[in-house]
Amino acid sequence: MKNWSKKIYLELPIPSEEDHRPLQVRLTAALEDSGPFRLEEKAAYIRMRPAALRDAQEICVQSGFCVTATVGFDGWGWELLKIEPGDTTASHYGLCADLGSTTILMQLADLNTGEVLDTESIFNPQINWGEDILSRIFYTKDRPDHRRRLQAATAEGLQTLMEKLKEKTGIDTFSCPVLAVSGNTTMIHFLMGLDAFGVFQSPYAVQTLAPDVCRAEELGIPMNGFVCCCPGMENYLGGDIISGMLATGIPDHEEISVFLDVGTNGELVVGNKDFLLAGAGAAGPALEGGVVHTGMRAEEGAVDRVVTEKGQLKIHVIGEGKAKGICGSGIVDLIAELYLNGWIDLRGKYQEEVPEVVRVPVRDEDETELAVEYAPGLYFYQDDIDEFLKTKAAAMTMVEYMMGLIGLTMEDVGRFYVAGAFGTHLNKESAVTIGLYPDIDRDKIISPGNTSLQGARELLLDRSLMEKAKEIIDRMQYVQFGAVEDFLHLMVAATAIPHTDMQRYPSVVRRLEERRKNC
Amino acid sequence: MKNWSKKIYLELPIPSEEDHRPLQVRLTAALEDSGPFRLEEKAAYIRMRPAALRDAQEICVQSGFCVTATVGFDGWGWELLKIEPGDTTASHYGLCADLGSTTILMQLADLNTGEVLDTESIFNPQINWGEDILSRIFYTKDRPDHRRRLQAATAEGLQTLMEKLKEKTGIDTFSCPVLAVSGNTTMIHFLMGLDAFGVFQSPYAVQTLAPDVCRAEELGIPMNGFVCCCPGMENYLGGDIISGMLATGIPDHEEISVFLDVGTNGELVVGNKDFLLAGAGAAGPALEGGVVHTGMRAEEGAVDRVVTEKGQLKIHVIGEGKAKGICGSGIVDLIAELYLNGWIDLRGKYQEEVPEVVRVPVRDEDETELAVEYAPGLYFYQDDIDEFLKTKAAAMTMVEYMMGLIGLTMEDVGRFYVAGAFGTHLNKESAVTIGLYPDIDRDKIISPGNTSLQGARELLLDRSLMEKAKEIIDRMQYVQFGAVEDFLHLMVAATAIPHTDMQRYPSVVRRLEERRKNC
Repeated sequence: MKNWSKKIYLELPIPSEEDHRPLQVRLTAALEDSGPFRLEEKAAYIRMRPAALRDAQEICVQSGFCVTATVGFDGWGWELLKIEPGDTTASHYGLCADLGSTTILMQLADLNTGEVLDTESIFNPQINWGEDILSRIFYTKDRPDHRRRLQAATAEGLQTLMEKLKEKTGIDTFSCPVLAVSGNTTMIHFLMGLDAFGVFQSPYAVQTLAPDVCRAEELGIPMNGFVCCCPGMENYLGGDIISGMLATGIPDHEEISVFLDVGTNGELVVGNKDFLLAGAGAAGPALEGGVVHTGMRAEEGAVDRVVTEKGQLKIHVIGEGKAKGICGSGIVDLIAELYLNGWIDLRGKYQEEVPEVVRVPVRDEDETELAVEYAPGLYFYQDDIDEFLKTKAAAMTMVEYMMGLIGLTMEDVGRFYVAGAFGTHLNKESAVTIGLYPDIDRDKIISPGNTSLQGARELLLDRSLMEKAKEIIDRMQYVQFGAVEDFLHLMVAATAIPHTDMQRYPSVVRRLEERRKNC
Repeated sequence: MKNWSKKIYLELPIPSEEDHRPLQVRLTAALEDSGPFRLEEKAAYIRMRPAALRDAQEICVQSGFCVTATVGFDGWGWELLKIEPGDTTASHYGLCADLGSTTILMQLADLNTGEVLDTESIFNPQINWGEDILSRIFYTKDRPDHRRRLQAATAEGLQTLMEKLKEKTGIDTFSCPVLAVSGNTTMIHFLMGLDAFGVFQSPYAVQTLAPDVCRAEELGIPMNGFVCCCPGMENYLGGDIISGMLATGIPDHEEISVFLDVGTNGELVVGNKDFLLAGAGAAGPALEGGVVHTGMRAEEGAVDRVVTEKGQLKIHVIGEGKAKGICGSGIVDLIAELYLNGWIDLRGKYQEEVPEVVRVPVRDEDETELAVEYAPGLYFYQDDIDEFLKTKAAAMTMVEYMMGLIGLTMEDVGRFYVAGAFGTHLNKESAVTIGLYPDIDRDKIISPGNTSLQGARELLLDRSLMEKAKEIIDRMQYVQFGAVEDFLHLMVAATAIPHTDMQRYPSVVRRLEERRKNC
């Protein structure tokens, strides 16, 4: 493991007539001669900026020249960041963050032990300039001033998290020597203050996929240290996914894994130590409840669980209060129950003869639509189902298509990862029932949680993962789904619940039979 | 010659579906493939900070991807500083400065041709916090706030010079990629905002003698480029003297040179390509008129020339107006004339019997002293002479002692350099007459002018001189005069005019005889 920063206790020789070397020389010699630089790695250089030298002397004199130096890796060599009196090597902390378009998470880790001390999250302040990522991209297009605004908001978000972590732990997060960030390509552009329009528009040439390590101050983050970002592979396959590869270890394993990240976008990796295929598609918002009339985030008031008891839908509401809408996991449960109860057919169409299926006006319109009242006053409409199934079909078709490219079927899959909050909260059985997950051994279906943050933490603890990430990117082959001819054909088949080919879903067939027996 | 900055014209491939590499990759590849980095030197790295990348895209698009990149050397590798539309390689300018304790000089040079376009100077704004360097050192001792104030004043001084140069030449000096600075150790400490007390007090351990290259912004200089400082050798033998070595080429020559820099301090180097001895002593202020009652800088109103015509002193006043005082060159002329006229003896004592020698009250005191009225109402007192002779003795003894160390006499000297404004304005004959210069072939006595600035310019044009400077420093042997036992003895002999050993000054003996014949 190679670290981004070192804290090194030095007992410097006290200046005398015989040894009156300048402080800079004295410090450099002592650092180069210290264990970390003799035993772990040779420093290409140890840069000392005027500001670092300024504080050094007084602290050296005050402490009898027994000091702890903090050095940080700048991408190519080392820089002296700080001199503290006495031996403070026991306090060595670092930060990592998942810069999501909706939520930013940050963790404080003990760099001596690797232990996570606390995790905090906030909504991404960029939301003020656009709920979705695309409207933010348009907001900043051709507007350097708007880019600066979004950049500053991003930096402020990170700063807020640092303050929260400081408050919680009592550790001065602003003196951390390193912050490792992973985020998708657009988020990294916004963090750096770069124009992200290339992410979205042909020929999809972005500004950077692997920004150089930079000083936090350059990004307006008042931290005396460096920011490193997990590199990305493509405009739609960013550092958050590569970070997920570091977190899951997929590129090192013998067994074949499927890695699906459902967020604002849907990203997919299939591979093992011998091959890595990756692709991305617009899968996200619908699955997270974005296009559903009463859809909402998984927060207080959201229906997140639906079951059928005695032929009746029973819901669970986050916060146990009144239901205000439905989130992703609730939608998956609901559609699964509608299907198992026979209220919708395998094409997802409401069955008019079912008494619970009612025809109601669609909000704000004269039209009516079939729907089910899943909670008092809250309807799930036919077009909610249609939209959702189209999206789940897109996601599953990506997987199927990619597997097919190399002649694999779901039986070859050793692990099926569903990353992110979506995967964590989803009921596996419901997800299999509607064909969002394949019908495989449930133990193989893994919800690893926020792999972007986990990968950022790994990167924080071991800077050699920066090289590893670049190797992964070099090995990865990007699959363009848009260019695929039979993709649409495959997708139509996947729009059914769980799929037009029921043989692929034997457990769903069994559940259907059981449910009918019970009725 | 290795440059600090390169301007490279690039015709970047325009992004397409086939080649949609990120801009950072596109730029780095094109730079690495360009002549300067293929033919001159391989770049260890080309760092791109967020700020540099931010501007790059718009300029690339506007200019059809035909741009000029400016890269600067950061001490170990390269950094992209700027992207401009079109081919601007013809405009490539750099700055160099001599950071003197009294005066700061700055030059603007064309980095393509090496031509100097303009030179400007100002008084060092640090003067507001102390006329002499020692009071500034005390002002900043244990006071980080005072250090910050002096640092800011120094940066503002440099900025003022940049503005002046910009006004004069129309060239945007603030976008120069490099500023090379030479100054004595204290000045470099003040520029960096460092505590300079170690320069002055035992054990003479300073903060740095060779600061790392840093961004100008880190010093509060609003320039998009790097600042490099000529390294120094010792607390009293700073980068200004090493710069002088670069300017004169003494360390490369076969012939033996003496290099004497009379400024606030007196610094001395004796050597050639085989050896280099260096030393320093408190020689300066007196020679520059600092301790003379009516002494002043060489500015309007200063007597800068004194001759004897028909037994009467004739003076020249800078600006041709009324005399306000006397500067260094005037003092040397005056003492020489006093001696040649027989108004003072070889010990520098006024001869009471000479009618021009009068007894007058010493300013603000009841005491009286012998003096000469060298200009209306301006007296040159006995103690002015005494002080001056002590200082000239110190300077000459340094030379003599150092020559003696390696068994050399003045006859072995190929070149006798007297650097700085003092040397430039001094009348050689007068200086020989009073024994400030040795009595050697006048062609061997060279007044090279401001070698600190000249060396800074050489450094600006060729960064490999940074290595050369360090080699010179490694070769140099520092001679501590304070520790020398027979130094005082030698000095007493040198206090005479020109010296107690008149055989060393045959031309002075001749001049004396001539003058007496004429009387």
